[in-house]
Amino acid sequence: MSEPDTKRVKTANEAPYELIYWPGIPGRGEFVRLLFEEAGVSYTDTAKSGGDAVPTVLKLMAADNKGDDVNPPSFACPALKHGDLRLSQTPNILLYLGPKLGLAPTEGNGIYHINQIALTILDCFSNEVHDTHHPVALSDYYEAQKPEAKRRAKSFIDERLPKFLAYVQRVLDGKASGDGPWLYGGKLTYADLVLFQGIDGTEFAFPKTMKKMRDSGKYDGVFKLYEAVKERPNIKEYLASDRRSQYSDGIWRHYPELEED
Amino acid sequence: MSEPDTKRVKTANEAPYELIYWPGIPGRGEFVRLLFEEAGVSYTDTAKSGGDAVPTVLKLMAADNKGDDVNPPSFACPALKHGDLRLSQTPNILLYLGPKLGLAPTEGNGIYHINQIALTILDCFSNEVHDTHHPVALSDYYEAQKPEAKRRAKSFIDERLPKFLAYVQRVLDGKASGDGPWLYGGKLTYADLVLFQGIDGTEFAFPKTMKKMRDSGKYDGVFKLYEAVKERPNIKEYLASDRRSQYSDGIWRHYPELEED
Repeated sequence: MSEPDTKRVKTANEAPYELIYWPGIPGRGEFVRLLFEEAGVSYTDTAKSGGDAVPTVLKLMAADNKGDDVNPPSFACPALKHGDLRLSQTPNILLYLGPKLGLAPTEGNGIYHINQIALTILDCFSNEVHDTHHPVALSDYYEAQKPEAKRRAKSFIDERLPKFLAYVQRVLDGKASGDGPWLYGGKLTYADLVLFQGIDGTEFAFPKTMKKMRDSGKYDGVFKLYEAVKERPNIKEYLASDRRSQYSDGIWRHYPELEED
Repeated sequence: MSEPDTKRVKTANEAPYELIYWPGIPGRGEFVRLLFEEAGVSYTDTAKSGGDAVPTVLKLMAADNKGDDVNPPSFACPALKHGDLRLSQTPNILLYLGPKLGLAPTEGNGIYHINQIALTILDCFSNEVHDTHHPVALSDYYEAQKPEAKRRAKSFIDERLPKFLAYVQRVLDGKASGDGPWLYGGKLTYADLVLFQGIDGTEFAFPKTMKKMRDSGKYDGVFKLYEAVKERPNIKEYLASDRRSQYSDGIWRHYPELEED
């Protein structure tokens, strides 16, 4: 296993963080990476471990992997190692890391509100975007389900996407979002980072559609928040670095025919 | 609003619990109900409020609902009211209630493991089961997407369902599940209740398929856990009561053609 780099790990304990994810795509791992990057906290990313990257994921998901004495096995990646702890499920990893990295409250019920918003954003901008290119046969190629994908994409573009964007705008318009561009409590939280990645990926997958949504003026707060995250110094540096993977055949794919009339 | 019944509310504070959900189906609200029922804690269920039930849900999801000073709005139901707190997103409500109702640890990292397992079970036995009858047009009728549903159901039956069942069996076979039939730490947690409802609903939707899965002998721990939950005194009483809704046109629907060869 590679060693974490030398940046200070600012956590309750001194254990290093390790992210396990597929190489070559941003994917769901990106939601986790953005928390570390914004917080300026070092982490090991197995996706960047060359030839070890795929075997590490396959070992995590193997049929004979039953976890260990204290950790249940993972169904899929991303997964997180932190000391003796092993966690999977994207929203669960974010829930664990948020308060530790200064990206969610450590007391009170705010964490449940942030989890609620993050789950909803993941439903739309990650899970439902994925299903536009894989609506009926999850293990098969896109090319084997193009007519179905076209139909699912139409439902996404015409109904689901505007409905979710309107929801996020409602969150921003509500008093619980507080001052400034952020979703909750007047402060940047991990929900904002999740929204940034969701919008960014969806703009890659459906550029014409997302331009229409921007230009409609109905969701100005959403796109303003997106820009505000993009300009955070640590995020800006990260996006320009080679740690940021390019979009390709992951969750967010650009098939132009899916947004043609 | 109707008053909660007279059973003692065993929570950190004395506020009553109120569940907001669609009437007439178990649906995702059922995951929440099972926690209250197992714990023997009283709750108000707006699904059972007669003519007020649908308007209550519509108000929750209305385009002008922006939450309040402390609570963001909800995208969908189920939602939970507890004192001044308003929460939505099924796994989020369970995460909040679990420790309060004695169905998850109140200290340490166990809650993240339970959340991980619950999220994975919800993905398969609730979300993916739903998508078998609504694969390409979420707001349209099943009848308008039958060929696509047939294809999605085949993928679910042949690949996804066995993969998820094998995962749950691996969790049970792993040491972190502890002694007894339960998923985590040798004790009943809300993850077990989520599995019970997921299996029960999927048996309604795909009875022939689930019988094959049972008879295969590959997932004996999973079905043993299902039976163990069903025999819990409070659950048994609940399932026999009129508080338990019958399956119909919700997440779990029985379309025989979806499991015919």
